[in-house]
Amino acid sequence: MKTGQEYRDSLRNRNIKVYIKGQLLDSKDVIDHPFIKGHVNSAAMTYELAEDPQFEDLMTATSHLTGKKINRFTHIHQSVDDLVKKVKMLRMISLNTGTCYQRCVGLDAVNSIYSVTYEMDQKLGTNYHERLKKYLLRWQEEDLMVAGAMTDPKGDRSLRPSQQADPDLFVHVVKKDDKGIYIRGAKAHMTGMVNSHEMLIMPTSGYGEEDKDYAVCCALPVDAPGVIHIFGRQTNDDRKLEGEIDQGNARYGVVGGECLTILEDVFVPWENVFMCGEYPFSGMLVERFACYHRQNYGGCKGGVSDIVIGAAATVADMSGYGKATHIKDKLNEMIHLAETLYCCSIACSAEGKPTAAGNYYVDPLLANVGKHNVTKLIYDIDRLAQDVGGGILATLPSEADFRSPEVGKYVEKYMRGVASVPTEDRMRMIRLVEVMTGGVALVESMHGAGSPQAQKIMYSKLSGLESKKKAAMKIAGVDPSKYSK
Amino acid sequence: MKTGQEYRDSLRNRNIKVYIKGQLLDSKDVIDHPFIKGHVNSAAMTYELAEDPQFEDLMTATSHLTGKKINRFTHIHQSVDDLVKKVKMLRMISLNTGTCYQRCVGLDAVNSIYSVTYEMDQKLGTNYHERLKKYLLRWQEEDLMVAGAMTDPKGDRSLRPSQQADPDLFVHVVKKDDKGIYIRGAKAHMTGMVNSHEMLIMPTSGYGEEDKDYAVCCALPVDAPGVIHIFGRQTNDDRKLEGEIDQGNARYGVVGGECLTILEDVFVPWENVFMCGEYPFSGMLVERFACYHRQNYGGCKGGVSDIVIGAAATVADMSGYGKATHIKDKLNEMIHLAETLYCCSIACSAEGKPTAAGNYYVDPLLANVGKHNVTKLIYDIDRLAQDVGGGILATLPSEADFRSPEVGKYVEKYMRGVASVPTEDRMRMIRLVEVMTGGVALVESMHGAGSPQAQKIMYSKLSGLESKKKAAMKIAGVDPSKYSK
Amino acid sequence: MKTGQEYRDSLRNRNIKVYIKGQLLDSKDVIDHPFIKGHVNSAAMTYELAEDPQFEDLMTATSHLTGKKINRFTHIHQSVDDLVKKVKMLRMISLNTGTCYQRCVGLDAVNSIYSVTYEMDQKLGTNYHERLKKYLLRWQEEDLMVAGAMTDPKGDRSLRPSQQADPDLFVHVVKKDDKGIYIRGAKAHMTGMVNSHEMLIMPTSGYGEEDKDYAVCCALPVDAPGVIHIFGRQTNDDRKLEGEIDQGNARYGVVGGECLTILEDVFVPWENVFMCGEYPFSGMLVERFACYHRQNYGGCKGGVSDIVIGAAATVADMSGYGKATHIKDKLNEMIHLAETLYCCSIACSAEGKPTAAGNYYVDPLLANVGKHNVTKLIYDIDRLAQDVGGGILATLPSEADFRSPEVGKYVEKYMRGVASVPTEDRMRMIRLVEVMTGGVALVESMHGAGSPQAQKIMYSKLSGLESKKKAAMKIAGVDPSKYSK
Amino acid sequence: MKTGQEYRDSLRNRNIKVYIKGQLLDSKDVIDHPFIKGHVNSAAMTYELAEDPQFEDLMTATSHLTGKKINRFTHIHQSVDDLVKKVKMLRMISLNTGTCYQRCVGLDAVNSIYSVTYEMDQKLGTNYHERLKKYLLRWQEEDLMVAGAMTDPKGDRSLRPSQQADPDLFVHVVKKDDKGIYIRGAKAHMTGMVNSHEMLIMPTSGYGEEDKDYAVCCALPVDAPGVIHIFGRQTNDDRKLEGEIDQGNARYGVVGGECLTILEDVFVPWENVFMCGEYPFSGMLVERFACYHRQNYGGCKGGVSDIVIGAAATVADMSGYGKATHIKDKLNEMIHLAETLYCCSIACSAEGKPTAAGNYYVDPLLANVGKHNVTKLIYDIDRLAQDVGGGILATLPSEADFRSPEVGKYVEKYMRGVASVPTEDRMRMIRLVEVMTGGVALVESMHGAGSPQAQKIMYSKLSGLESKKKAAMKIAGVDPSKYSK
Repeated sequence: MKTGQEYRDSLRNRNIKVYIKGQLLDSKDVIDHPFIKGHVNSAAMTYELAEDPQFEDLMTATSHLTGKKINRFTHIHQSVDDLVKKVKMLRMISLNTGTCYQRCVGLDAVNSIYSVTYEMDQKLGTNYHERLKKYLLRWQEEDLMVAGAMTDPKGDRSLRPSQQADPDLFVHVVKKDDKGIYIRGAKAHMTGMVNSHEMLIMPTSGYGEEDKDYAVCCALPVDAPGVIHIFGRQTNDDRKLEGEIDQGNARYGVVGGECLTILEDVFVPWENVFMCGEYPFSGMLVERFACYHRQNYGGCKGGVSDIVIGAAATVADMSGYGKATHIKDKLNEMIHLAETLYCCSIACSAEGKPTAAGNYYVDPLLANVGKHNVTKLIYDIDRLAQDVGGGILATLPSEADFRSPEVGKYVEKYMRGVASVPTEDRMRMIRLVEVMTGGVALVESMHGAGSPQAQKIMYSKLSGLESKKKAAMKIAGVDPSKYSK
Repeated sequence: MKTGQEYRDSLRNRNIKVYIKGQLLDSKDVIDHPFIKGHVNSAAMTYELAEDPQFEDLMTATSHLTGKKINRFTHIHQSVDDLVKKVKMLRMISLNTGTCYQRCVGLDAVNSIYSVTYEMDQKLGTNYHERLKKYLLRWQEEDLMVAGAMTDPKGDRSLRPSQQADPDLFVHVVKKDDKGIYIRGAKAHMTGMVNSHEMLIMPTSGYGEEDKDYAVCCALPVDAPGVIHIFGRQTNDDRKLEGEIDQGNARYGVVGGECLTILEDVFVPWENVFMCGEYPFSGMLVERFACYHRQNYGGCKGGVSDIVIGAAATVADMSGYGKATHIKDKLNEMIHLAETLYCCSIACSAEGKPTAAGNYYVDPLLANVGKHNVTKLIYDIDRLAQDVGGGILATLPSEADFRSPEVGKYVEKYMRGVASVPTEDRMRMIRLVEVMTGGVALVESMHGAGSPQAQKIMYSKLSGLESKKKAAMKIAGVDPSKYSK
Repeated sequence: MKTGQEYRDSLRNRNIKVYIKGQLLDSKDVIDHPFIKGHVNSAAMTYELAEDPQFEDLMTATSHLTGKKINRFTHIHQSVDDLVKKVKMLRMISLNTGTCYQRCVGLDAVNSIYSVTYEMDQKLGTNYHERLKKYLLRWQEEDLMVAGAMTDPKGDRSLRPSQQADPDLFVHVVKKDDKGIYIRGAKAHMTGMVNSHEMLIMPTSGYGEEDKDYAVCCALPVDAPGVIHIFGRQTNDDRKLEGEIDQGNARYGVVGGECLTILEDVFVPWENVFMCGEYPFSGMLVERFACYHRQNYGGCKGGVSDIVIGAAATVADMSGYGKATHIKDKLNEMIHLAETLYCCSIACSAEGKPTAAGNYYVDPLLANVGKHNVTKLIYDIDRLAQDVGGGILATLPSEADFRSPEVGKYVEKYMRGVASVPTEDRMRMIRLVEVMTGGVALVESMHGAGSPQAQKIMYSKLSGLESKKKAAMKIAGVDPSKYSK
Repeated sequence: MKTGQEYRDSLRNRNIKVYIKGQLLDSKDVIDHPFIKGHVNSAAMTYELAEDPQFEDLMTATSHLTGKKINRFTHIHQSVDDLVKKVKMLRMISLNTGTCYQRCVGLDAVNSIYSVTYEMDQKLGTNYHERLKKYLLRWQEEDLMVAGAMTDPKGDRSLRPSQQADPDLFVHVVKKDDKGIYIRGAKAHMTGMVNSHEMLIMPTSGYGEEDKDYAVCCALPVDAPGVIHIFGRQTNDDRKLEGEIDQGNARYGVVGGECLTILEDVFVPWENVFMCGEYPFSGMLVERFACYHRQNYGGCKGGVSDIVIGAAATVADMSGYGKATHIKDKLNEMIHLAETLYCCSIACSAEGKPTAAGNYYVDPLLANVGKHNVTKLIYDIDRLAQDVGGGILATLPSEADFRSPEVGKYVEKYMRGVASVPTEDRMRMIRLVEVMTGGVALVESMHGAGSPQAQKIMYSKLSGLESKKKAAMKIAGVDPSKYSK
């Protein structure tokens, strides 16, 4: 397994093209850019905590391919216990970073593809599963960070890929030869991409015959020729160019660091292609990935919420109202909401079942329930945090004012809360609440792993409504057989 | 194990005193009274389903005392799997009864007392645990239904037991001799009491030295001399005196059948006494019981909600608007809420841990989170059911009108929805939604296993807020050691 | 104006056919039936309070037809002030009855028809408006109680009236002659009908040419030949056959007293016909009525909520926890919600505008907003009331137990809260909370004046979304003219 | 009245000291600073729209002092109609700015002080009211922008002003002489201060004898000697240093532009002092101001929400999913919430009453209800906007990327939604949703005009709970006189 330092070092050896605000970064220094380094620190935690013996049980696993100890982020889940530990690992890491560490996406991608390729091969006689296992072996051996790449830009959402004015708005195969395939398009919202080694391309949804070329799944290095990354703006990203305090979470940042990844006729050799035209399996892959990924949110966002709760409570303490009944009640409400999210993630894991390929899959209904709660309850938690935090969240003077020889003394004097607490400490906590409860952090909770409507659609499919109707009829003394379709 | 029929028969051999609307019932016929028979049918399901091989895994367990197969409602949980199965059993039974079957209270009581007596004995050198095991042995052998009896009437809630104008407002020991103890007082909201064999008396909360006599835990038959039961009113209970349709759930009723149980200096022999004055352990017992009992609600109310969802969906179908988008959306929302409750129950079970006595205890924080969600989300589910069900829920003519030779034809004609559905079927489903979404059913979700504030109080104790504060400080660059207390 | 007593007396002179539980009532004694007398008491308050000088300003108005003082329930709104006073009158009466007094429906009907007939006449050269004014004159002179009759049974909701298997599922004209028309069908959920003098038939929605016969609006006595009323069941209606306590609100009841009114080819003379086939105006009439009626709910339900709040607070006081912080917080939350409803009713009134006919019409968007809030916030208020009220709401022994020579002493002893408060008083308050927060009372808030979706549909029409889009584009620096349709 | 241009020009003639990020701005150019100019543009709208004849009715009023036409922002409310027009004016301006225009604070301050000084003079024989009228005369004549300055930094919130370790944490009088008073301290969250002419200092709460020196109310220029302003950070403020698109609302900004205003022994002549030590009136002043200010939020935030709704709807249209049912439903929900806020502001205005001084005051309970709804519903509106807006809100590339010769083409290509819509237009709308739904905009809704708990406290005082209890007792058949205190 890689150490945190080895992970960082390995990122310098890439020939990656990253643009930020229209400027191409030097590929060796990408990870030093102020907009990116926090995300690297956060991802590095997935390596560093794996080195720590006290977290060995959560952070590592035993490879089912080699029997070796591997980082859990490279593991194919072999049991319910593996599923539960994934959630606990996520919550624990979040408590250490206060933000996204990006590496779950690739983990979820490979676990999904693992089972889908198996079923595809069974049905179609293809050989994708073995290819994937070979790829996975290297992944585990080299302890790679692999970005999962699903979301296409999608253009006009009322049209299918093949109906778009521009055929490239979904990633598709533009050429095949005996060595491999060439793909074109883009993937949006690519979490952790710029500090990953490789990426796993997946299709966005269930396609039909006419969208066959869009049913593509493959792996490639993030610095493959023809790949360009444009780093997205984040709330308050420019504060990273200044001092530490105003950033709130200066070491790890606020979200995962997303980019738009352009694929200009990029070549992928056949050994790294795991689906190519088998459109009837594209929907299955999307669903598997979505459910694995939705499993996470009560873990990672649970931990992030713990930090929000702790930060809001600390601001209250430092301002002298930490013991007010209504404050304690609001903190308890926040705890209630965060633990509700956690319950969903634990439950969908505890109810996991093996797939045909042998790896364990979460309960899909409960995984959706969890993510759907995140799209609402995180907003409630953050609203309560802003309530507890006070109006100063919106009007605090800058660190530069605090450091100023001229007005620093006023900030020091008037931004003080409880007399014994240094003003700087209070400012740091206020900033932490501010940055964690607004902007991208909220949007990420809403749309990460699928927008609310995506979960609602799954309910129609997974909820067993017909059997509930029949049970209700029986209770009411109505014969269900009269109404069976 | 008893069959359902044996259970019913055994209830006839009691010399029980039950009053309904001021009238003493004949003790042999108590279970035939229209107000009571539904509750008996429902409780009997806990016996009948245990006879069914397809439910053996959920409904039965292996006694850790005897190694014999026993009804799970008499089992001391030996593993996380036992805890999870309890929840699944509850949801499954609810799907068959659409209402409370009452028997979990005794189960939760004995599991709580099991661990508390063990710890008490360890600390104090008492011998309660062995007594309890002996009692439990008979319970399992005879497959008893035992009511858990905790809630005292409480009088003036701002006063402790010993401060009340009337000392009997909490059950207390009024006399002891070498044979046993004599207890006086009452227990309120006694679910399933009138169709149980025995009851397990528990104290209501953590008491001090001055309330020592109130720290009493013991078992006695429901028909012991000096015991009187006054059956509580329920929403629409009088409909049980008429035909079937207007009852909605004519076979099983709407809630659990609660009574006020009076204890007039009732004698309990020492072998059935499991706490008597050890007040420092009364709070622990209350907490254990509360958490076990709060675990249940995502199971039983999850299943009850399934029936509500199915019933509302069926009314929509039968009225011709089942395919409307906003209806489907509301049904999905209801499903989301019901599954959220279920997640909490599964999670607190999956995170269960062994007690010092060896039996398994739920995660107390998550159990509270689950129940607290019930106090809100069931109201949301029922509100949505009433939305989907339509205004006819409040104005449907009676069954007597429907059966009337004079106006029955009008009810038949004008209460019809979709032409192919018999009006009676539609009326039955409407009534089912009506009775399940109002009155006692809601109050039970609110206050059963403890009112919302009871859970909030537990959060303050269990949430680990201090460690969240420290984690947040670290993220913000504030040294937590400066703030450790 | 009639006194309350005159109103009661006048109801005895009807030849009305009312069925309850399949039994035809004696027409002279209809208002004495236990199921009905509370509704009469409540409606009578609209007469009695008008006699009271302190309420003259709210309860009476000056007829724009005659200049005479009339009961406000017979008034055509002549100003914004009239609209506002209507809301205040409703809240004030509710504070005196704790329930629906039914008489607003006719008031809303006549105000709607008043403006629609005017516009119809202007457009089509018909003479309906003058007819209505003549009818109105008698209404005001005789201080009639007139039921508004809109909702048809509707059968299969996915079909239009003319598409139904049974053409009578919507009220329609089956014959016309030179004297008048003959109508057939039924009207459902008829509030206050059995204790009214007359009824105003209105169509249910906007119809097309093929549903022309269903576009009928007319007035007729509730005891016209061919009219039959089947009284609907209510939650706990049978308690009205027993003592007083268990009813909670023994004098006035819980809701409005709804029935299914059958119209068997009922004759209506032309002078009482206000629409007959002018289907393009049926939708306008429905919308006007809906908005006037939706205006009310923050008034009447505001007042009803005041009683719920007061009752819950009193139970808390009588039980010794009225001063607990979380209880006060919940009461404040309930007050917040009730006043939010009231704000909507006041606002839609204050923003009222004159119609072409000269009478004042509420702001339709804000009236819908108010009712839509009712469909949610009343549930929240009632949930909080049940929280504050405690589990005893679901398990309180009956009045018969309390009065019993045998067990009355136990109820007296153990149902006591604060020692100084008589148990009976506490029981009465508990019952009041119980009956006001469940069953029909909730459904009425949901569906009265239109189900939630009915309001949502109005938003699409009334919200001015297109102009909001244009304003947003301007702010964003996008030229709206490029996107104007 | 001043024109917009005259307003801008007048701001250049100040000798104001403003610090941003530790740097002192040139006092002539303060309004050109990128962090400030948007706020000036927004405030200028209160002058510019007053020049527009179509808005004359809303934007201007007739001075009760001079009978001259004045800007409504300098008006003492003379009627209910004035109160209602204030709300409508606010909503209308917000539709034009999409953000705060800051000028209501001074208006609310002067209306509050107007009535309080009158009552103070009546009671104490002081002469403050006449002083204020003289000051007001100049205010109206010169059409000043006056900042209301209430919130003190407050230090340790568990301590009163006189108990703080540092006595300056609340503004207080440090010296008096025959010319005037000298004040020291600071005021936090000063909206619009840096682009105002004067400020009105008010106390923060009801004080006792020992806090007498803190009971001070007076007016002074924003550039008086000893006054220093430190401008607060806002979410994404640094984007104002770049191009236009990423700002979202480049012309007007996102919130009101708040600063921390330091008062270093600032002299105020007696003619501008309106309270000085009369502590029993400080609480009354705070309450009056709070209620006037809480009145506004359904107006200004209603209009701001209209822009949010319009922007989200436009993003949906431009992305091809504007016609999806769930999107329309969410937009309707947003409209519902925004209009609920508006209803509260209209209602508290329509229910306004004259004070002893003759000016009109809002209904205080309903004003609090309105603001309290804002602290929750704006979060719901913004959550729904983020839902409708999509994940791209969090990951959109920067304007610099869009303008880049190298990667601009990719942004152009892949950020396109509906083919006919230019990518830039879509980006602008996405940015507008992004900036309006996060960070300071939310916090402002939470804490502006008082935090949620401040409203809850008012409910306890204003709700008439005791009379609700009595009314409930009467309904339940309990004699209220037995329980009157």
